[in-house]
Amino acid sequence: MFVRALQYMDFPGPIYPINPRAQEVLGLPCYPSLLDVPGPVDHVISSIPASGVLELVDHAAAKGVHSVHFFTAGFRETGEEERVALEQEILRRARGAGVRIIGPNCMGLYCPAAKVAFNRECPKESGNVAFISQSGLNAEEMITYASLRGVRFSKVVSYGNAVDLDESDFLEYCTVDPETAIITAYIEGVKDGRHFLEALSAAAAAKPTIVLKGGVTGAGGRAADSHTGSLAGSAQVWEAACRQAGALTVQTLAELEDMAVAFSFLRRPAGRGVAIMGVGGGSSVLAADAGEREGLSVPALSEDLQAQLRQFTPVAGTSVRNPLDTVGIRAREQFLEAVRIAASSPDIHLLLIQSRIDWTPGSRQDSMEFVAQSVEALEEAVKVAGKPVVAVIWPPTTVETMVRVLAFQDRCAGAGLPVFWGVHRALHAVARFLDWYEARS
Amino acid sequence: MFVRALQYMDFPGPIYPINPRAQEVLGLPCYPSLLDVPGPVDHVISSIPASGVLELVDHAAAKGVHSVHFFTAGFRETGEEERVALEQEILRRARGAGVRIIGPNCMGLYCPAAKVAFNRECPKESGNVAFISQSGLNAEEMITYASLRGVRFSKVVSYGNAVDLDESDFLEYCTVDPETAIITAYIEGVKDGRHFLEALSAAAAAKPTIVLKGGVTGAGGRAADSHTGSLAGSAQVWEAACRQAGALTVQTLAELEDMAVAFSFLRRPAGRGVAIMGVGGGSSVLAADAGEREGLSVPALSEDLQAQLRQFTPVAGTSVRNPLDTVGIRAREQFLEAVRIAASSPDIHLLLIQSRIDWTPGSRQDSMEFVAQSVEALEEAVKVAGKPVVAVIWPPTTVETMVRVLAFQDRCAGAGLPVFWGVHRALHAVARFLDWYEARS
Repeated sequence: MFVRALQYMDFPGPIYPINPRAQEVLGLPCYPSLLDVPGPVDHVISSIPASGVLELVDHAAAKGVHSVHFFTAGFRETGEEERVALEQEILRRARGAGVRIIGPNCMGLYCPAAKVAFNRECPKESGNVAFISQSGLNAEEMITYASLRGVRFSKVVSYGNAVDLDESDFLEYCTVDPETAIITAYIEGVKDGRHFLEALSAAAAAKPTIVLKGGVTGAGGRAADSHTGSLAGSAQVWEAACRQAGALTVQTLAELEDMAVAFSFLRRPAGRGVAIMGVGGGSSVLAADAGEREGLSVPALSEDLQAQLRQFTPVAGTSVRNPLDTVGIRAREQFLEAVRIAASSPDIHLLLIQSRIDWTPGSRQDSMEFVAQSVEALEEAVKVAGKPVVAVIWPPTTVETMVRVLAFQDRCAGAGLPVFWGVHRALHAVARFLDWYEARS
Repeated sequence: MFVRALQYMDFPGPIYPINPRAQEVLGLPCYPSLLDVPGPVDHVISSIPASGVLELVDHAAAKGVHSVHFFTAGFRETGEEERVALEQEILRRARGAGVRIIGPNCMGLYCPAAKVAFNRECPKESGNVAFISQSGLNAEEMITYASLRGVRFSKVVSYGNAVDLDESDFLEYCTVDPETAIITAYIEGVKDGRHFLEALSAAAAAKPTIVLKGGVTGAGGRAADSHTGSLAGSAQVWEAACRQAGALTVQTLAELEDMAVAFSFLRRPAGRGVAIMGVGGGSSVLAADAGEREGLSVPALSEDLQAQLRQFTPVAGTSVRNPLDTVGIRAREQFLEAVRIAASSPDIHLLLIQSRIDWTPGSRQDSMEFVAQSVEALEEAVKVAGKPVVAVIWPPTTVETMVRVLAFQDRCAGAGLPVFWGVHRALHAVARFLDWYEARS
């Protein structure tokens, strides 16, 4: 798995598969043990059973290896006494030899600039979002979902039981890493509370830092113990600590993805006033409710601006107050004129534009051309508005709409536009994004 | 649009298009006016401009029509004095002639048993869920999304400005309608508070009744006024009134869809204990947290049951406490044994099973076969558990996974299994479902 992932990334250095029962692995010469490798070795990925790890650590020490990533599981997280002891013995021997450990029980490193990844779904391009994830599954999910919306990563580390390098070490690294501008984290347990708070405070003082805590309930804490042997702690203490440190907290992985999208693509609005455009009817009503529930403002446009909009908006079945029901406006010029008028209001600081790319385009229009034109209209809207724009689409309901959703997201990412599945997720992310900045000014 | 939708449904009675400028519409002979139609007319759908509606009402009265649905918009919702007056005049003339009105400014009726629909995305089969929706867009969205997960409708009405027939009338109808077992509603404004509370109380006493209120904030209320000319009222009053009436309230359309799925397919669990199965790692930890946050219980299995599970579950990288990070659904016998053991716990009342249908199936396995086997395993699990089962999948990330998602949902619906996009939505729906029953016992 890991050799394949490195080959997929075009890893430039030598890769030495080690297996006493093979001559060759995926076209590479295979060695019976680490000590048989001809050249120097920087980093070792262990996917052998737990029973062989002590010997591997000794070999790594003898070989002058810098770090070992233990994909190998079956240690402290099992709760079994001798396996807990084995994990401690790995640590003792590694520390003695100056070998650093990632894991055990984790997926390890994804670093596109170094051409290292743990699976072949990881984008090859680098970005500026770091993700520190105690869970490998959550790391994969974050990468998969966020990258579809244009997020690219500087470094992702899945670090499992954290016997040596832990959440605080990785936070400290990301705080000074020049490639990282945004820090996201999924953490189950904190090994050293004081160290962690210092590291989190330093991170949040330097860069937007968003943390998802796993195991904040009784059942979740028990699951975290079974998963990475973590002592999880209470939700209240966690929230208070993060607030004090200046970090944003979220409750779901989808929210963490949304915040990565927001911090990657959203320019900071000058205030909380949102114009909601693009779709009318009940959708607009619910969007306006959601905006106010999230602590945003969805202010009515002035009589004057409403009159300007009425000059080209039919009176039946539309609204020009805000939300703006511009669904009847197919013509690009009129749409952009509506954007210009809405954005000219001093109460409006951001435009949320809902695109019904799932609706059937005109009969002479090809579906992909329709998507391309929809994103072009949004790009024009950004220019005309001179204020930040957020794109919203509906989750797909057919294979055909999924094709459009993927193309739309891809084009939005190319145009630097944040895109969200549904107005509720968009408004929530915008509100938390503003919370971050307001807490710092 | 409406003629096409009726033809799509194979409407059995005569359809009379009326248009003074056409001889034929979609293969049907066209009449210059309603009065020229040869036979009797029961129901009229008006999509003419607002300027022609008074004459149409007079013609409907002369022709002995029972009801007119005004798709026509441009009345009270515009806020313009003469259009408000026009709406009142329509009502006055219709009342005088015994003609009932649906709307104006709405999509009207979807009733599969009567072979009536407002678009060609509506399923032709009948079901037992009624949806009373002041918004046509929300009606379409509810039908589209919920029907993909097997929900079928008895009656859907989009009723817009509600000048005559209103939310209370439709609630009263659904309360006694033998075809309707579950009542869902999207309401912007309430015309007569006392009548509404009586109707809602009667509905909720007879059938599960779930209400989404639009316009509960300042901005939302303004949007509701622009949309359907509704006076929306405050969130607090609304919540209190619904609680008193015994109805469930939700805040988003997705939640309303989820509740329709839950009430359509979920058997009532005997308590709040949930076993979470199918996927481990960080997903399990977050699922356990979400369960407890929703007021459910995710209890640890007894030592004895854990020991039974350990007999066939490898110790590394798994958990047998609950959440259960067990063997995948692919090892069918072991999966079902795990289901049997978990369900045998007296603390477990419902099983939530996460299926990673987005993961690549075995190399010799076809993707659709993989989906079919996944649902078969869940059907077996229902039998083995003897307790309710909820299916959870991940939102699609590729065209290929979208194909699988649609097939999985379709097969779950066929098997009578409730399926949700993501564990958070599933747990929230289960919790609200239990709230409903617990409030009544």
